[in-house]
Amino acid sequence: MLNTFSPGLKGVIAAQTRLSHIDGERGQLTIGGCSLDDLAPNATYEEALYLLLNDRLPTAAQLADFRAELAALRHLPEVTLAVIREAVGRGDAIMDVLRAAAATLPTTGDPRTDGLRAAAAFPLIVGGAWRVRQGHDPLAQVAAGGHAAAYLAALTGTDPSPAAQRALETYLITVIDHGLNASTFTARVIASTGSDLISAVVGAVGALKGPLHGGAPGPALQLVREIGSAERAEPVLRAMFERGELLMGFGHRVYRVRDPRADVLGAEAERLFTTDGDRALYDLARHVEAVALRLFEEYKPGRRIQTNVEFYTALLLNGLRLDPDLFAPTFAVGRAGGWVAHALEQIAAGKIIRPTSEYTGETNRPWIPLEERTPSA
Amino acid sequence: MLNTFSPGLKGVIAAQTRLSHIDGERGQLTIGGCSLDDLAPNATYEEALYLLLNDRLPTAAQLADFRAELAALRHLPEVTLAVIREAVGRGDAIMDVLRAAAATLPTTGDPRTDGLRAAAAFPLIVGGAWRVRQGHDPLAQVAAGGHAAAYLAALTGTDPSPAAQRALETYLITVIDHGLNASTFTARVIASTGSDLISAVVGAVGALKGPLHGGAPGPALQLVREIGSAERAEPVLRAMFERGELLMGFGHRVYRVRDPRADVLGAEAERLFTTDGDRALYDLARHVEAVALRLFEEYKPGRRIQTNVEFYTALLLNGLRLDPDLFAPTFAVGRAGGWVAHALEQIAAGKIIRPTSEYTGETNRPWIPLEERTPSA
Repeated sequence: MLNTFSPGLKGVIAAQTRLSHIDGERGQLTIGGCSLDDLAPNATYEEALYLLLNDRLPTAAQLADFRAELAALRHLPEVTLAVIREAVGRGDAIMDVLRAAAATLPTTGDPRTDGLRAAAAFPLIVGGAWRVRQGHDPLAQVAAGGHAAAYLAALTGTDPSPAAQRALETYLITVIDHGLNASTFTARVIASTGSDLISAVVGAVGALKGPLHGGAPGPALQLVREIGSAERAEPVLRAMFERGELLMGFGHRVYRVRDPRADVLGAEAERLFTTDGDRALYDLARHVEAVALRLFEEYKPGRRIQTNVEFYTALLLNGLRLDPDLFAPTFAVGRAGGWVAHALEQIAAGKIIRPTSEYTGETNRPWIPLEERTPSA
Repeated sequence: MLNTFSPGLKGVIAAQTRLSHIDGERGQLTIGGCSLDDLAPNATYEEALYLLLNDRLPTAAQLADFRAELAALRHLPEVTLAVIREAVGRGDAIMDVLRAAAATLPTTGDPRTDGLRAAAAFPLIVGGAWRVRQGHDPLAQVAAGGHAAAYLAALTGTDPSPAAQRALETYLITVIDHGLNASTFTARVIASTGSDLISAVVGAVGALKGPLHGGAPGPALQLVREIGSAERAEPVLRAMFERGELLMGFGHRVYRVRDPRADVLGAEAERLFTTDGDRALYDLARHVEAVALRLFEEYKPGRRIQTNVEFYTALLLNGLRLDPDLFAPTFAVGRAGGWVAHALEQIAAGKIIRPTSEYTGETNRPWIPLEERTPSA
């Protein structure tokens, strides 16, 4: 038993998991036993989620059953649609809409069903919020099969192209799980009390919202847009290095040699922009990246700073014509599967997560009746 | 840095707090530096919440300002009322209604304001859910001032008696904070990411829902009702002891000599039943308690098992004519203040809570294309 304060619980092992493993030193991410490099470009989101839930890849028949199970849960009740309309109408950010709307999903008493319902609902909630913001009605359900296709259909009202769907599958799998980050830990703490999976996932959305959480792509492409043309890349970036400014899109807290998610998404972005999307922005971004990496070598020699996952995520999601306001909610559409798998794993562990606190306050503060208190008391 | 797995984080110190301190060995609970024995019977809920937020008791003028601030936030938007109606209509438990409705409250960007709004909304949400269940409309606001009075008014639509209000103030203060339980920890984890206070409090409601959480009064009075008359107490209880059955309402995990909350609530219940309430049930409960304590001495000598807080809570809330379905939500109406104070304290600490996990799964699972997989793979 540890009896010293661990700020932020840094380094404290709070769970055992078979779901994912981050090897920052080697630059490897394992999802359900598979290397992300294998899984992300090849699997569908349903295959990856099945793998997390069942610790094995599905056969064709098992996958068909699982897709049908998810499809049957992929519809929104009227109260959820009403919350989407109202929350967007009063100007809530889409992450706030997602929290409010997901919290209205019904529970059944069966954690797996509730978890799959939450995961299946996320594409419709986020897509619906976007549609309302554009002046359209949110969709209670969509014909398109599968998590990725349903999300694009819920956003646009039309079936996505095969290239767009594949690119989004790859992104969603890339973010489906990543160890015990703060949102996943939140889902596990809530589930550890024996509460329902809707509550666990709603709590996780709340934690993901926080700016310190990380994972959701930030303003990495904003700089590329500001630079605007290839010849401005070097002078603008060099001026930033000279001023010691932080460069968004480079470096990572955990991965030292390479971020496997960045490699996967970089390759997927290359494929997407070959068939679809704004090739001019893609080429400019790649040019800015090359200049930035050269300047990192010049200004911070030996630090081996790499392009990070946020840079390629922003490139890929921009290629899918997603507005930056949808970047964090799209991350949630992918991460939902990991939250559900972790919450179910925690329930199976059967132990409440309840750390302790150290008291640093007053003791024996005297009770003074209200009328006798003075401002200096 | 600890690098061994701590199941449930038992004994791990995850936060420093000046808000409350449990001394289980001495049977003392400190709230904002004051002894619960002083605070609970004397303070109003607003005084106790002010103490938590400001680390001092308010003067009369400060208290008046704080009450006015809370009163101005004590109203529900139409979308929240709509969610209450819909969720009750489809048969959700009141804790589920509370989670769904609280998640629709708007955020302002100011954590303190959002937290106070959530706390101020809880009495109206729970009261509204109860009213809808009884076939009435939920109230968007009530005239009655103060957290306790507003809750009783939101339930019944009429102003409460002074005795009822005082009894509820005492109960709500008794549960306003209790160290780092799972729901309070959830609020701190969510707030630690820099997320908003509505998200933190909604996550905490989700954790409180879980049957392993504890704190909310369980079926302690059900046994008293089943016994039904004084002369049946000994034979029924003795039969339970002989069969080795668990007796709800006795014993506590933390408090060894006395549970200070039980003492405070026992005294308050005595006062309430003297002026108001069903004296017959009260006298029967006290008789059952005396017989149970005598039988504990006989069957488990030296264990010094005490009546616990659940027993007196059930007695007091029953005296306030609250249905058992309202017991857990009423606990949430009180605990909301502690959640807000802890979330704000965590934000001030400025550090994300992010423990780590230990990987126990497969590695190097080969990727097999779908059409080549077999059921035994």
